[in-house]
Amino acid sequence: MIQEIKQKIDFKTKPIGSLGQLEEIAIKICLVQNTLTPILLNPTLLVFAADHGITKEGVSAYPAAVTPQMVLNFLNGGAAINVFCKQHGIDLKVIDAGINFDFIPSENLMDAKIAKGTKSFLTGNAMTTDEMELCFAKANGIIAQIAETGCNIVGFGEMGIGNTSSASMLMSTLCNISVEQCVGRGTGLDDDQLTQKMNILKQAQQNRAEPKSAKQALEYFGGFEIAQICGAMLAAYDKNMLILVDGFIATSAFLCAFHISPKIIDNAIFCHLSDEKGHKIMLQYLNVKPILNIGMRLGEGTGCAVAYPIIQSAVNFLNEMASFESANISNK
Amino acid sequence: MIQEIKQKIDFKTKPIGSLGQLEEIAIKICLVQNTLTPILLNPTLLVFAADHGITKEGVSAYPAAVTPQMVLNFLNGGAAINVFCKQHGIDLKVIDAGINFDFIPSENLMDAKIAKGTKSFLTGNAMTTDEMELCFAKANGIIAQIAETGCNIVGFGEMGIGNTSSASMLMSTLCNISVEQCVGRGTGLDDDQLTQKMNILKQAQQNRAEPKSAKQALEYFGGFEIAQICGAMLAAYDKNMLILVDGFIATSAFLCAFHISPKIIDNAIFCHLSDEKGHKIMLQYLNVKPILNIGMRLGEGTGCAVAYPIIQSAVNFLNEMASFESANISNK
Repeated sequence: MIQEIKQKIDFKTKPIGSLGQLEEIAIKICLVQNTLTPILLNPTLLVFAADHGITKEGVSAYPAAVTPQMVLNFLNGGAAINVFCKQHGIDLKVIDAGINFDFIPSENLMDAKIAKGTKSFLTGNAMTTDEMELCFAKANGIIAQIAETGCNIVGFGEMGIGNTSSASMLMSTLCNISVEQCVGRGTGLDDDQLTQKMNILKQAQQNRAEPKSAKQALEYFGGFEIAQICGAMLAAYDKNMLILVDGFIATSAFLCAFHISPKIIDNAIFCHLSDEKGHKIMLQYLNVKPILNIGMRLGEGTGCAVAYPIIQSAVNFLNEMASFESANISNK
Repeated sequence: MIQEIKQKIDFKTKPIGSLGQLEEIAIKICLVQNTLTPILLNPTLLVFAADHGITKEGVSAYPAAVTPQMVLNFLNGGAAINVFCKQHGIDLKVIDAGINFDFIPSENLMDAKIAKGTKSFLTGNAMTTDEMELCFAKANGIIAQIAETGCNIVGFGEMGIGNTSSASMLMSTLCNISVEQCVGRGTGLDDDQLTQKMNILKQAQQNRAEPKSAKQALEYFGGFEIAQICGAMLAAYDKNMLILVDGFIATSAFLCAFHISPKIIDNAIFCHLSDEKGHKIMLQYLNVKPILNIGMRLGEGTGCAVAYPIIQSAVNFLNEMASFESANISNK
């Protein structure tokens, strides 16, 4: 199969290899869809949102109240992810994975609330084993629903004040890297605040026995949105969808999914390198090259949405360009 | 003005600076258009094509006949640039700047033919002073025509077997860098062919007096398409258009324009880092950061077209995102 795909690409009217990473993306998509004429159907962006008990220890530049406020902003169409999804015709759904707020039901809000936020992981587990399993079960249901629309490419974003702390702990645990290397400024901590965050997270690690699995790490450190993204990525892989991975937090969820089912990497496209400190090391650990490197660090799935047209370009050149033969052009 | 733009960006519902390079692009576009609500109108991609006398010395992996063959491919809609322009609603025009072929007139082909290819610059000038001036005059006419459509953003691409040789010589001359550092594999030379190209270009440089200006360098080394792109960029700047710069060859034309009128850089957006060896140094010389770095090296303006939606994203977030105040969100 791979030889046929490469031959199709190399017969296009262009020097061999001259479309760079677009060619690698095209190959990946062909392999996932097992075809030489791939297609992206009903692209969907899922933003999972939840609150985090760890915020009360003072790890974020913004108050926890911003989580529900931003979710209302998503529902009202005012956030960055709304703008970029609208630009590219991507269907945007917001999932309440565990926000400390009672929302009025809305067409674009999916209810998968586990509780009104995790517990602080400074002195105990962020969630129970039952809550963790419920995250996976609800995520399965969400992907089943999305699959019914015909969607075969799904991006994962998140919102949750405090969630870079959970992501850093997951990274440290799963990549076996010191906490120092995994902690960054999140939404914009100054030097003193960063030191405080670092100290809290180091203490949290000392308070905890070594997790025995990715699922146990999710129980320890949360959050509900990260666990649901992990579960949803695994469910999307089971349905053979293309999986678009956003920045630091979404990649921490991917790391968990990768530890549970390493083959998932075959379906994953890494959309951008976040400016959040640990992301580069995460991507190196996974041995993958992101599409964009434009200093974004917003989350919400914005990296997926901004990179989406480039993924579409990879599919389009493969399907639409003439070959040397069909265009009567002299090859080398 | 810049303070007002930054304030508008910083009041959007996102952490400060979290959209990275999108914010820098938004600022640039606001400054060019002198507004807080910029707009991209009738985006147009101009592909200038011409033949090069230097090809007879053996500098390219492809025969010169590929130049007109690829132009026919553009006109038939089968090339990469057609696919990407179609994807993003970019108006594509092909300019015959000096191809060794008689084309049947066609709606998307603009005739600006200077001659049926430049002379080999191995032993003499690629073009006369009159031809050089005619390139600028015709380029002016083309931009005047494009401006009439209301276009305020124009990308520049090229096609011309042999034109990386001209571009390398222009780069060496204008950046005052050794020919060795400026010569790369073009459409895909192997090691022996690269050595041959290098030797020919070093000899060409020895045969020539130091050029006294960018225009004289264009006369020496060509090509007609590069001179016309240079003239068209200067004309686009005079009309205050945004100028999208593609890869190695388009940037060599920009280098010439920059030497003639340094302020042109205010209107320029560098769309990608080409895999062609010298491009990185060119961009460093200009002290600019390209949007994409995905290993493309196809020319035709493909870097501009693939990056275009990201430029549109920069405009869209500025115009469409809610502010903290309008969305009732707690700021830091």
